[in-house]
Amino acid sequence: MGRLFVVGLGPGAPELLTLEARAALERAEVIVGYHAYVDQVRCWRPGVAIRATPIGAERERAQEAVQLAAMGRTVALVSSGDAGVYGMAGLALEEWERVPAAQRPALTVVPGVTALLAAAALLGAPLGTDFAAISLSDLLVPWPSIVRRLEAAAAADFVLGLYNPASATRHWQLGAAVGILLQHRSPDTPVGVVRAAYRDGQRTAIVALGEVPAQPVDMLTILIVGNSHTRRCHDWLLTPRGYRSRPDEAASWVPG
Amino acid sequence: MGRLFVVGLGPGAPELLTLEARAALERAEVIVGYHAYVDQVRCWRPGVAIRATPIGAERERAQEAVQLAAMGRTVALVSSGDAGVYGMAGLALEEWERVPAAQRPALTVVPGVTALLAAAALLGAPLGTDFAAISLSDLLVPWPSIVRRLEAAAAADFVLGLYNPASATRHWQLGAAVGILLQHRSPDTPVGVVRAAYRDGQRTAIVALGEVPAQPVDMLTILIVGNSHTRRCHDWLLTPRGYRSRPDEAASWVPG
Repeated sequence: MGRLFVVGLGPGAPELLTLEARAALERAEVIVGYHAYVDQVRCWRPGVAIRATPIGAERERAQEAVQLAAMGRTVALVSSGDAGVYGMAGLALEEWERVPAAQRPALTVVPGVTALLAAAALLGAPLGTDFAAISLSDLLVPWPSIVRRLEAAAAADFVLGLYNPASATRHWQLGAAVGILLQHRSPDTPVGVVRAAYRDGQRTAIVALGEVPAQPVDMLTILIVGNSHTRRCHDWLLTPRGYRSRPDEAASWVPG
Repeated sequence: MGRLFVVGLGPGAPELLTLEARAALERAEVIVGYHAYVDQVRCWRPGVAIRATPIGAERERAQEAVQLAAMGRTVALVSSGDAGVYGMAGLALEEWERVPAAQRPALTVVPGVTALLAAAALLGAPLGTDFAAISLSDLLVPWPSIVRRLEAAAAADFVLGLYNPASATRHWQLGAAVGILLQHRSPDTPVGVVRAAYRDGQRTAIVALGEVPAQPVDMLTILIVGNSHTRRCHDWLLTPRGYRSRPDEAASWVPG
């Protein structure tokens, strides 16, 4: 019987792959994925069969991976970050379900470090407490649904991770989102802007919410918008979890 | 100068550690963490200095790690999952800030696979689209704030990850949370209940939202509550990302 691994590659650096993801990629006879991601794998698995597909062809990519596995091959379908977060896991499952039961391959989803966690680590500790992830791409979800989620999350003081803030064809969504957030949060609210986390060209900045629309953003950028407790801590971003300092801790501690 | 790595160990299995986390643990002269987590590390780093602290002593653990690093040691402070998600990163940053500038150690947060992503992978593809993470622990956050977030996230149709649903001393919060969610979602809404993901005793179940209060839960359990589009897909949980099936795809595909 064939086998399909749906694998999250993490943000990009091979060091942020999990060992299980690496093992799945080593076991695979065929690796299916978007050009830029499978190229990462090619360098350490020379000779493996690679099916690279263009961006936008997600459905076809999932079909091809499932089809190959249904024919008995061991296949790794790769996503950046975590395959379950705006990645290929859902499409893979939809295609897997359509295969007649007798031919359905064994299916394993291998989790990974999603962009939100990668960006958060580079910023320090911005998540801290409850958080929400929202994609600003309205290609597959109607914009009013996105607005409803932005409003709800902003009003309930979630830390917010904004995926897909802009692309070659989407320019106005981030400005519109910030407008909504500013109805609930101070323009001074700190926001982490991270581009290409753990990849060439990595860039991190901490700016005020009111300044966000002036930031250059693209498909490789993710933003983390602080809640009402988030603050800068030197070059880091910190959302306290809620631990209260005890009075006896108030005096500054000096290392021995 | 000393160095502090704040390291997410992932859900438990060594295979879900990232390579960067493993490298940080190998570099560390001292490893600081909660008993159960550092025990995982002890077996493959025999002889390394280990400072294991009891549960509840998070502030002391962060202080000790920062203090050792400020004295020039290379220290790894470990959290399960991702250190930034209900983990040690925030406390570490607070303690780091209190060290006089000249003694402040270099600080690196190493991201990890948080419990939500681990559970989601075991369930298939429940996250699919926008999601929110909420901890039901009211030890550090007032319950009314938690209620406000549950209401907002439920009303705006987020998939929900519920961390810390119960503990030895907290029993009623999950039932109360489900009561709030049922005001916005059908009792048939599928919910994934995952205990001890990627550890001994792992257990996953998919139940209806209305049945959740009857499930046994503890500190090792996480729940993923579907949104209005989430459905069962054989033994898996699927939240479609929003891709619409094209009419020409409607006929069931048969592998060649």
